[in-house]
Amino acid sequence: MPPQHELGEELKFTGRLGGGLWLDIKRKIPWYCSDIYDGFHIQSISAVLFIYLGCITNAITFGGLLGDATDNYQGVMESFLGTALAGTVFCLFGGQPLIILSSTGPILIFEKLLYEFSKSNSVDYMELRLWIGLHSCLQCFVLVLCDASYIIKYMTRFTEEGFSSLISFIFISDAIKKMVGSFKYYPINRGFKPDYITSYRCDCLAPDQAPLADDNMTLLFNLTDMGYSQLSKKDCVKFGGSLVGKACKYVPDLALMSFILFFGTYSMTISLKKFKSSRYFPTKLRKLISDFAIFMSIMTFVGLDMLMGLDTPKLIVPTEVKPTRSDRGWLVMPFGKNPWWWYVASAIPALLVTILIFMDQQISAVIVNRKENKLKKGCGYHLDLFWVGVLMAACSFMGLPWYVAATVISIAHIDSLKMESESSAPGEQPQFLGVREQRLTGTLVFVLTGVSVFLAPVLQYIPMPVLYGVFLYMGVASLSGIQFWERIKLYLMPIKHQPDFSFLRHVPLRRVHLFTLIQITCLAVLWILKSTFLAIIFPVMILGLMVSNSDEEPHSPPSCPQKIPMAIIDPPLNRASCLSPQTNPLIETNPYSTVTSDDEELDRSITVHLKICPPSPVHSQMSYGSGDSMPPLLHHHHRRQYPGSMSRRPTTGNRL
Amino acid sequence: MPPQHELGEELKFTGRLGGGLWLDIKRKIPWYCSDIYDGFHIQSISAVLFIYLGCITNAITFGGLLGDATDNYQGVMESFLGTALAGTVFCLFGGQPLIILSSTGPILIFEKLLYEFSKSNSVDYMELRLWIGLHSCLQCFVLVLCDASYIIKYMTRFTEEGFSSLISFIFISDAIKKMVGSFKYYPINRGFKPDYITSYRCDCLAPDQAPLADDNMTLLFNLTDMGYSQLSKKDCVKFGGSLVGKACKYVPDLALMSFILFFGTYSMTISLKKFKSSRYFPTKLRKLISDFAIFMSIMTFVGLDMLMGLDTPKLIVPTEVKPTRSDRGWLVMPFGKNPWWWYVASAIPALLVTILIFMDQQISAVIVNRKENKLKKGCGYHLDLFWVGVLMAACSFMGLPWYVAATVISIAHIDSLKMESESSAPGEQPQFLGVREQRLTGTLVFVLTGVSVFLAPVLQYIPMPVLYGVFLYMGVASLSGIQFWERIKLYLMPIKHQPDFSFLRHVPLRRVHLFTLIQITCLAVLWILKSTFLAIIFPVMILGLMVSNSDEEPHSPPSCPQKIPMAIIDPPLNRASCLSPQTNPLIETNPYSTVTSDDEELDRSITVHLKICPPSPVHSQMSYGSGDSMPPLLHHHHRRQYPGSMSRRPTTGNRL
Repeated sequence: MPPQHELGEELKFTGRLGGGLWLDIKRKIPWYCSDIYDGFHIQSISAVLFIYLGCITNAITFGGLLGDATDNYQGVMESFLGTALAGTVFCLFGGQPLIILSSTGPILIFEKLLYEFSKSNSVDYMELRLWIGLHSCLQCFVLVLCDASYIIKYMTRFTEEGFSSLISFIFISDAIKKMVGSFKYYPINRGFKPDYITSYRCDCLAPDQAPLADDNMTLLFNLTDMGYSQLSKKDCVKFGGSLVGKACKYVPDLALMSFILFFGTYSMTISLKKFKSSRYFPTKLRKLISDFAIFMSIMTFVGLDMLMGLDTPKLIVPTEVKPTRSDRGWLVMPFGKNPWWWYVASAIPALLVTILIFMDQQISAVIVNRKENKLKKGCGYHLDLFWVGVLMAACSFMGLPWYVAATVISIAHIDSLKMESESSAPGEQPQFLGVREQRLTGTLVFVLTGVSVFLAPVLQYIPMPVLYGVFLYMGVASLSGIQFWERIKLYLMPIKHQPDFSFLRHVPLRRVHLFTLIQITCLAVLWILKSTFLAIIFPVMILGLMVSNSDEEPHSPPSCPQKIPMAIIDPPLNRASCLSPQTNPLIETNPYSTVTSDDEELDRSITVHLKICPPSPVHSQMSYGSGDSMPPLLHHHHRRQYPGSMSRRPTTGNRL
Repeated sequence: MPPQHELGEELKFTGRLGGGLWLDIKRKIPWYCSDIYDGFHIQSISAVLFIYLGCITNAITFGGLLGDATDNYQGVMESFLGTALAGTVFCLFGGQPLIILSSTGPILIFEKLLYEFSKSNSVDYMELRLWIGLHSCLQCFVLVLCDASYIIKYMTRFTEEGFSSLISFIFISDAIKKMVGSFKYYPINRGFKPDYITSYRCDCLAPDQAPLADDNMTLLFNLTDMGYSQLSKKDCVKFGGSLVGKACKYVPDLALMSFILFFGTYSMTISLKKFKSSRYFPTKLRKLISDFAIFMSIMTFVGLDMLMGLDTPKLIVPTEVKPTRSDRGWLVMPFGKNPWWWYVASAIPALLVTILIFMDQQISAVIVNRKENKLKKGCGYHLDLFWVGVLMAACSFMGLPWYVAATVISIAHIDSLKMESESSAPGEQPQFLGVREQRLTGTLVFVLTGVSVFLAPVLQYIPMPVLYGVFLYMGVASLSGIQFWERIKLYLMPIKHQPDFSFLRHVPLRRVHLFTLIQITCLAVLWILKSTFLAIIFPVMILGLMVSNSDEEPHSPPSCPQKIPMAIIDPPLNRASCLSPQTNPLIETNPYSTVTSDDEELDRSITVHLKICPPSPVHSQMSYGSGDSMPPLLHHHHRRQYPGSMSRRPTTGNRL
């Protein structure tokens, strides 16, 4: 076994061409065997089933949206194949195989804009897209060779949390929107009186004048007035008939049944997950129930749906491997359709795509690799980006969608692979030991996605509302690991009932609340921007925020101790904070200086320092706690260093 | 203030005519003023609303069933008036004003049988019923004067728990049955395909031959074929038309909406009740939310129902004060319709009614007065029975249904009036201090029931499924206070996670399980009997069980210490058990004797002793714990007496 990986060097700027990539490969190779055999565990089965269902739902949703946006140049079939191809390759060779690739919102908006542009300017969309993909791939390679991913280490908790909260909120809101959508798609007849059923009907009436002759001419000639009344709703509209009657615009039962399936799946999953800390059954059984919570919920509500036999919307996957549009093949030719200067000019939109991809990919990677997850096998930001670039080119050639790391599904993947201490008492949170880091589950998920075409007969029994319920669960679950969310909850808690977070020991509550409020405001602004056309530059905004933060770095005064409180809440990632004893001997000599500054600052005008200390990558990570499943925030380190500060906040016997 | 009431003397056999009744009155009179002013508390409002809705739902349900059973001689109107009259009188003058009177199952079955008998033997039902009521009233008076209620003290925990569990299960199963019923009443069209809406219809076709002439002759003549197609479903059937079409037998949305309302109300109530031990909001607000949980849930789902605007079944109360049947008045004449010998013979069925009423009333009273509820103002079994007898006669004269104590609603009444320690930490169970014993809430509930006729415009917005959800909650909540239920849950718990019940310290787990198993078996048998015509003698069976137990008493050998384990689980009520130090000096001198017998008995053949020690009413209750909200079971007493036994069971740090 290779020695335990030294965290922090992953984002070091090597100064050599491709030095980071080389280090990534060197770091990951020794783990490759264990990446396979560590996957053999019963938990992996539940993880694969869970993530597989999440992936195909995503593939269908994004496939459908892409199909709408590009007139089916990329449809559900392309989405499935692309997901399978990109995912399998990434999980087999990527730097962090726990990351799940998926289509994401910004890319979807880009494709939409690109297709509209191509159509209105008579440019061939597929060829243009291929060149953008190729340029973007090239730009990714340049970024990899320059170790550009090292700028990610300048990202603060503020940025990281903002990004992952926003993505989680989008997930939750999308799931709810889809649910609400089914009430629009299957309108309920609210005024219905059971006794007046005799007056509810929907008749197809023949049109007054004969419809214009078209392909269906022969069929039309056979349609007498009588014939029209036999037509189904769709056919009636197709053949120019008009639908008359009170019943026409309503669909009974389906909306409410969808709601029951949606909410039932969600709440059953939540309840079963909580079952781990119940008093009933032995620990192993409880763990099994908790691990398979999602699977059991899905099965239960699929069963209920089959039992009811209602025509709820089902998961329909393509059953034949062929491009969605019949006029395109599986390979896009790079030359011939557009003028030569497009091949060069496409480097400009490619730049936007590269930034999109770089930010989406690396922020998700940061979230996946966060200390709280206690990953032991290290990560590989450069290697990740390399493969994303390669897949970019491959997908462009085959006319498949582009893929980057999907934050929420990746978090769900990690959640479903968490190892916890065996003997957990009821009510007590079991101790988090680490994640089953391996390549098997991810690979299996995407291989399954690829063969979904053959699984169609089984998958068609799964109602979509059940899967939206799973999405809602994913969104809610991914929020729970975020400190920002814990801090929002503090607003509603009386002081004496607040949990014993380490940051509450070191930072006055008022400042914690202020910091949280600023985060909420920023998120609200981002949320509003997201709803506009600016959504596409969303990752760029984060980049801007990050860069502007890191520009301020040199101006940070050496008066660190006074600014420690915020640093505890918002430490720059992958770097040592001021509290690292080696860089700041002041604290070392005066263990109560933080405490004093707390009290001093309480009465000063409140200023928020997002980042305050000069970087010192050498000691990176070393000073962070490594034994907690709670957001670490220098927890251990502090507790060791300043035992006196333990009793600073009112500690009642009520703390959990 | 009178001195705190000495429990136990309430069921003493005085030996004087009406001695018990006299003591009851003497005991209750001093509390009368506080019975009024103790009711002025915000909690009373939530209690009144909760119990009021429970009562009128019960009144409507039983009224409907009685109407069916007696051809509307007693209908919903009679049920409302009777409930109001009986409840108000009982709450104002009864011995235990926390008891809520209601119609009960056995009485309903009796009325049904009586009406069928009257019809087939051409006897006037109302007059016969009046005489039965009068005889029964007389018999109740005899029982009161003889202090007959004292036999209740021979009831064991086994019997009491069996009865209250069974009633709770019946409540739960009835609520679920009513819910399932709405799926039958509003059948869902399972094969419905939205696209084929054009082929779903329901037409009213004119009958082939003209229907027979009847009262509606004039209307019929106007009905051409065209006219028939305009008729509603009910009218169509009424005028002999036939309903043709796929849509006729289905009702859209209502079944599923009912389910959402039912389950939503139940789960929201459960969640809000649990909110008391949450971390959020200050204690007072949490307490308020918890107290008004049912009201808020009802309001939420009434609001949802109004928002959806669907034609769900609503709470329709009568709007006019007149007998349901137009051919009867508000007073039943005792003479004239039946031969004279019926007036005498009716004493025999009256005997059955008296036993029914006596058992139903007194077992419910025992459950209400149980030690766990920490009542301070004492009870009055004889006084209760006296008023039930009086009301029996009054209701018989007015042709209203008969009323006895309703177990589950009474428990719900007590639950909604529980006082708990103010400062409760999250996760911690607040300490139970006692119940707001007063006559105000009960009286208000029944006065409101009486004026419901005028509240009809408001009540008609409440959907029935919401009320069934409340019933389900009542049933589940009334189970939670029963030790039997706690012991059933032990089956599913690994030993190390079991709560620290005192009986688990003193009795080997195998024996606890065996005892529980026997109880389950007995309940299962009772449940099966209940489903047959034997239901009517159900209270008689309990009487039999009780009497047979008390017959065994004299044969109990003096070897008490060896049989203590079961006595702890099943102590005879209102009596001192063997563990009372005064009656059993053996334990006093050897504090570890119980412990030794535990181990010895573990290997012996297991025998179950339902009751083992001779009664010693003098020390009654004194030996029971008085400071716990858990089933006391000599908890305190023991803990004090045998500190060594504390460590006998494996105690991990996990115990809550």
